[in-house]
Amino acid sequence: METVTRIGVSLEPELLRSLDNIIKSEGYTNRSEAIRDIIRKKLIETEWKEDKSTVVGTITMVYDHEIGNVANKLLHIQHEKHANILASTHIHIGEHKCLEVITMQGKAKDIRKLADRLKAIRGVLHSELVTTSKTI
Amino acid sequence: METVTRIGVSLEPELLRSLDNIIKSEGYTNRSEAIRDIIRKKLIETEWKEDKSTVVGTITMVYDHEIGNVANKLLHIQHEKHANILASTHIHIGEHKCLEVITMQGKAKDIRKLADRLKAIRGVLHSELVTTSKTI
Amino acid sequence: METVTRIGVSLEPELLRSLDNIIKSEGYTNRSEAIRDIIRKKLIETEWKEDKSTVVGTITMVYDHEIGNVANKLLHIQHEKHANILASTHIHIGEHKCLEVITMQGKAKDIRKLADRLKAIRGVLHSELVTTSKTI
Amino acid sequence: METVTRIGVSLEPELLRSLDNIIKSEGYTNRSEAIRDIIRKKLIETEWKEDKSTVVGTITMVYDHEIGNVANKLLHIQHEKHANILASTHIHIGEHKCLEVITMQGKAKDIRKLADRLKAIRGVLHSELVTTSKTI
Repeated sequence: METVTRIGVSLEPELLRSLDNIIKSEGYTNRSEAIRDIIRKKLIETEWKEDKSTVVGTITMVYDHEIGNVANKLLHIQHEKHANILASTHIHIGEHKCLEVITMQGKAKDIRKLADRLKAIRGVLHSELVTTSKTI
Repeated sequence: METVTRIGVSLEPELLRSLDNIIKSEGYTNRSEAIRDIIRKKLIETEWKEDKSTVVGTITMVYDHEIGNVANKLLHIQHEKHANILASTHIHIGEHKCLEVITMQGKAKDIRKLADRLKAIRGVLHSELVTTSKTI
Repeated sequence: METVTRIGVSLEPELLRSLDNIIKSEGYTNRSEAIRDIIRKKLIETEWKEDKSTVVGTITMVYDHEIGNVANKLLHIQHEKHANILASTHIHIGEHKCLEVITMQGKAKDIRKLADRLKAIRGVLHSELVTTSKTI
Repeated sequence: METVTRIGVSLEPELLRSLDNIIKSEGYTNRSEAIRDIIRKKLIETEWKEDKSTVVGTITMVYDHEIGNVANKLLHIQHEKHANILASTHIHIGEHKCLEVITMQGKAKDIRKLADRLKAIRGVLHSELVTTSKTI
C-alpha cells in the first residue's frame, strides 16, 4: 500500500457510537478501514454515473446454446467490441445451459450499451452487470 | 446539533482525491459532511439486518379498492398491529386506485413481517418498503 | 375489477413447473394472479424510465429539525412544487428527528428532480424514493 | 428448445395495453417471450431465498495484491471450497489492482456464506455477488 494521508472527520457522538458498533460486528480492525470501505462503494456508484472515467465491470449471462445461434452471436459481438473486452469465461452448467462471464473495460456509457446488447440476444435467459472500478 | 467528536481517518491519496471529486460534484461543503452521509447509509443497512434495534420504515402501497374488500383488510391489520404503526396516509389516485403510505416502528423482523403481510393482501397491486432509522 | 382479457402464453415445461412452485410458496390462487403481479413490477420500472407517462411516488425522509432551518426549506420547496405534491405526513420520531413522507405525482423526470432536491437539503439525514404507478 | 406448454392468462385490458407497450419498446417478438423473461427473473429471486435448490452465481472482486497476502488467502479458500467453485478468472487491471471473477455452485446459503467470506478478506476493495440459476 502507498503512503496514506490522514484527514480529520467530525461526527456526532451518536453516529460515532453507531459506526463503532458496525466496526465491531463486521470485524474491521479500525475506523479508517471501515470508512475507506464505504467511501469505495460510493466512489464506484459515482464513477458509473459519470461518463468520463474508465470503468471496469463484468456481465454474467446464462443462455441456452440451442436457441437461435446465441453462442455465435455472443462471439461475434465480443470480437466487434474487443477493445472493451478483457476476458471471457464459459461454463457448461447443464445439457443446454451455459454460464458466461465477460469482463469489460471502457467508458461507463459504452459498457452499459454493450451489456444491454448482450442481454437482448434471443437465447440469453438472464444477465446481470456488476459495476466496479480500477481506481478504488 | 450536539457537540461533535473529531476522529482521524487514514486514506490512500488516490481514494482521497476520488472522495474530493465526489464532494465537489455532489455539492457537499466539506469532507466530514460527505463521510457522515455515507456512514448513515451503512448504518441503516446494518440496523435492519440485526433484530435487536428499533427501526422505522414506511410502506407505500397501491391498491384497487374494488377488489376483495382490501381497504377493510388493511384497516383491520393496522389496528391489530397498532403498536407498530405510527401513521397512515391515504390518497385517491384514480377511480379505483388508492395509494397508502404507512409509517411503522419496531423490531426490524416485525416490521418486515408486517410489510410482507400487507403486500400479500389480494387487491394490493404494488408495495414497497423503505427502511430508515431514528438513530442516524 | 373490470372485465378481463384472456391471452395465451407459451412456456417451456421446466419454467412452468418453476412458476407453479412460486405460486404455491407465495400463496397466489392461480397463475394469472402471479403473472399479473410480475408484469406490474416490470411496468413500474418501465414507466419510470420513460419521461412521457405520469407517475406517482413517495419520498421518505429523516431529518434533524435543529439543523439549518431544514423544516422551513422543505415547506418552501413543497409549496413551490405544489402541483407535484399530493400529500405530506410528518412524524416526530425523536427529540430532534423527524420522519416525513411526501407523495408526489408528475413526469418521472420532474419527480426524480424534486426528490434529489429534497435529499440535498442540509439536515436531511436520509431519504429514499419509492417509484410506483397509478396505471397498474 | 424443448416442446412448450401453452397456458391461458387473464389480464385487465389496461395491464395488457401496458404489457404491449413494453413489448414494443424493448423489442420482444411476442407476449410469451416477454412474460417468460419476467418469470425467469422472479424465479431466480425465489431460488436464492430458499435454501433447498442448487443455484449458480458469480462473485466479482477487485483487490490490491500488495495488501496482506490477499491473493494467497483467496487461493486457499477456493481450494478449501473447491466443491462449490466452478471456475475463476483473474485479470490484471493495474499495477497493484486485480479483478477476479469466481463462478460458484451449491446451496444458496453456502454460496452466500462463501461470498461473504471472500469479501471480508483484507485487501479486497470491492466485491459483488450475481445470483443466477441453472434451471431457468
